Amino acid sequence: MAESWATLGIDLHLEPTGPHGLRRGLTDALRDAVRTGRLAPGTRLPSSRSLAADLGIARNTVADAYADLVAEGWLTARQGSGTRVATGMASPAGPAGAAVPAVGRPPRRRAVDRPTHNLAPGTPDLSAFPRTAWLKAARRALATAPNDALGYGDPRGRPELRTALAGYLARSRGVRADPENILVCAGFAQGLKILTAVLRARGVHTVAVESYGLFVHWDLLAAGRLTTRPLPYDDLGTDTRALADAGAGAVLLTPAHQFPMGTALHPDRRAAAVDWARRTGGLVLEDDYDGEFRYDRQPVGALQGLAPDHVVHLGTASKSLAPGLRLGWMVLPPSLVDECTAAKGHSDSCGVLDQLTLAEFIASGAYDRHVRAARLRYRRRRDTLVTALAVRAPEVQVTGIAAGLHAVLRLPSGTEQSVVQAAAWQGLALHGLATYRHEHSVTAPLDALVVGYGTPPDHAWTTALESLCRVLP
Amino acid sequence: MAESWATLGIDLHLEPTGPHGLRRGLTDALRDAVRTGRLAPGTRLPSSRSLAADLGIARNTVADAYADLVAEGWLTARQGSGTRVATGMASPAGPAGAAVPAVGRPPRRRAVDRPTHNLAPGTPDLSAFPRTAWLKAARRALATAPNDALGYGDPRGRPELRTALAGYLARSRGVRADPENILVCAGFAQGLKILTAVLRARGVHTVAVESYGLFVHWDLLAAGRLTTRPLPYDDLGTDTRALADAGAGAVLLTPAHQFPMGTALHPDRRAAAVDWARRTGGLVLEDDYDGEFRYDRQPVGALQGLAPDHVVHLGTASKSLAPGLRLGWMVLPPSLVDECTAAKGHSDSCGVLDQLTLAEFIASGAYDRHVRAARLRYRRRRDTLVTALAVRAPEVQVTGIAAGLHAVLRLPSGTEQSVVQAAAWQGLALHGLATYRHEHSVTAPLDALVVGYGTPPDHAWTTALESLCRVLP
Repeated sequence: MAESWATLGIDLHLEPTGPHGLRRGLTDALRDAVRTGRLAPGTRLPSSRSLAADLGIARNTVADAYADLVAEGWLTARQGSGTRVATGMASPAGPAGAAVPAVGRPPRRRAVDRPTHNLAPGTPDLSAFPRTAWLKAARRALATAPNDALGYGDPRGRPELRTALAGYLARSRGVRADPENILVCAGFAQGLKILTAVLRARGVHTVAVESYGLFVHWDLLAAGRLTTRPLPYDDLGTDTRALADAGAGAVLLTPAHQFPMGTALHPDRRAAAVDWARRTGGLVLEDDYDGEFRYDRQPVGALQGLAPDHVVHLGTASKSLAPGLRLGWMVLPPSLVDECTAAKGHSDSCGVLDQLTLAEFIASGAYDRHVRAARLRYRRRRDTLVTALAVRAPEVQVTGIAAGLHAVLRLPSGTEQSVVQAAAWQGLALHGLATYRHEHSVTAPLDALVVGYGTPPDHAWTTALESLCRVLP
Repeated sequence: MAESWATLGIDLHLEPTGPHGLRRGLTDALRDAVRTGRLAPGTRLPSSRSLAADLGIARNTVADAYADLVAEGWLTARQGSGTRVATGMASPAGPAGAAVPAVGRPPRRRAVDRPTHNLAPGTPDLSAFPRTAWLKAARRALATAPNDALGYGDPRGRPELRTALAGYLARSRGVRADPENILVCAGFAQGLKILTAVLRARGVHTVAVESYGLFVHWDLLAAGRLTTRPLPYDDLGTDTRALADAGAGAVLLTPAHQFPMGTALHPDRRAAAVDWARRTGGLVLEDDYDGEFRYDRQPVGALQGLAPDHVVHLGTASKSLAPGLRLGWMVLPPSLVDECTAAKGHSDSCGVLDQLTLAEFIASGAYDRHVRAARLRYRRRRDTLVTALAVRAPEVQVTGIAAGLHAVLRLPSGTEQSVVQAAAWQGLALHGLATYRHEHSVTAPLDALVVGYGTPPDHAWTTALESLCRVLP
């Protein structure tokens, strides 16, 4: 049986094949229509009842097919809006800190590239964004904002937000922050871009980085004419003792939770970084991208607390809330505030309404409640991941799981590439560790996967995990 | 009589002097406390009833003093929030298109600098921001947004907004826009910054500009290592015929409403600009900062409609809604889309929630309604301005008033500086035309004021106007 279906003004070839019959056939046909662009993003699909009537099949079959595609992210279903073709493509390469397509690499993506499941690290579970609480905060913020808050204002960001952040960061991360020294920016990447310009203007030519990290950050530094020099990596984390010979004016680190290896920087290495900065006047850039998500012990305090005059603490709402907010912050040494503010200027300011809303969200305690709930949810996922792997792939060693939204799965030597390829064939977006290794790293390459367990929505997590288990050796 | 008042934990010296007695005394004392920082921004003042009781004066006197200070912008009063010390400083230099402090000029301002009345151009009446309608649109946008809208997404901006803008700009400004060619950015200045980088990368060294304009834009171009070369200005507007000899790869124009002179570019000059672009491959950057506010005849269509392959149309929500939104857009020739998108990257993206809200605001018709109402309100102000000047300062010629939020007041030769100074002494922020003249302009300097009548809230407009009349010759 093959039916041609023109309800949406397109032909949909419905061929029930294999064990799943009509449901699978309809799912495949719809997925194909979205993938090829015949069903445009945002298009509203007919109700399951009316499509079932059109096709002469059971309503449940249509409802099941819709549910499958929603789970896979091809369709979205929201009360009042019906079922629609998803707009905006999930970032298959979305990494931590920020997802910055490198300069010169056009960032547009097509539905064709879209995986069925996404276990690439870097994006939190967007279905858990606290829409209601956020809107409530927005209402309060807008009701009480003075009129001139809507004007051009301070390029450092709204004072309400800087004040709320100073309190929050002190309390939750041990950051020594004065609102005057905070610069609100459009996520981590904009902060790094600003620092790149300031460092270059100060005569810095080289920035030390970690052996493992994000090429988008290294590219940002390179675009600002700074050379990146990787430090070695071992069991204690990045070897900051090597800073002494790196000839660098700054170092970019992820001390609380190395990205992507997942370890906390050893206290000796923390001390070495701070010593180096104090001794040489170098600057430590602390990327604290997911410092709030720690499961098994007390959070590792921010490095900035040790040496606020030598460390820039960079945080973001991209992991704790959503990247789409484009809100991040830098806590700057006082001596850098004016330069960074000037480098940012008004031209790259963030919208004040979201800033005021986040300030209210933090001040009202909603941020703490949200982070607590998210931490529980991600921890459960991590636990199911560890359990499933213990049963299904006992050879695979799981590391870096004391915190964050991703895990590192060590693979038998020489298998990384084939596993990633097998995953791609299955429609599973999965990154190998090689993606995150600096090309000039002296640390020996390891075969491993970097599995982002934060990304799938709750209802898709089990099938995503199943899909992962199938491709492991 | 002098009372020391410590209700707010500060000493307030209350000295009734002059004809206004206690009311003026209290107003002065409170203003002084805010100006010197003894009353911190955001501080809630006691109710007029309880303060009156504390001071042993009539409640109406306190209420009147509060009202004066609200009108002047020192205090804010909102239902449910009481009367508070205003936070955030109005930008005394806030200009059109965008307010970009030049690189190297630290943009922080203190309450001390704050004028009593602000007639500098560049900021719309922020008290008229449609808070309720905006919040309604935000609620709808957030309720229907697919989850992945909250992810990193397309650096060009949300498709919903680009689609809404394409329709709106075609309808209202005659722009030929495909959503694919629109780049959403954080206001005009960010757009110009992106274009500067792209032009420089394409080998452009010189950009022609108008004799009158904004130094912040010229500084942005200069920061991107582009030389600005001013074109002559005469009664037909900027003389674009001079482009032939300017050696420029691009020209920055305000065709619908020259900023700040207020004239529409003559059709011959429009044609000359387009011809030049077609002939040489040069690029026209059309700054359409307030194209929606035209009072006496049909809007002047966008130049972009004549030559979409040679003109970048730049618009902003800063004048029609509020600068604090930090939302602008560029309609790009197709050949520039990839380069500009790459230059922007994800790092400088705007928050998606405001983008989705603006899309909904436009799509629902709320934007049209708001602009219509604002146009009426500003037109009334313009009319009272013209009438008051005809009566109070008949020597002063008013020009540039067919559109926009500002007027140019021609002064007797040699008087501009002293009038601006007299205004400053009165606490009236007022800009002379000299502020807007390119240092290399060959056009003879004129004595004039650029009066932004959009900025004061409605209740302060009459006194601001009175204050203006007092300083005119």
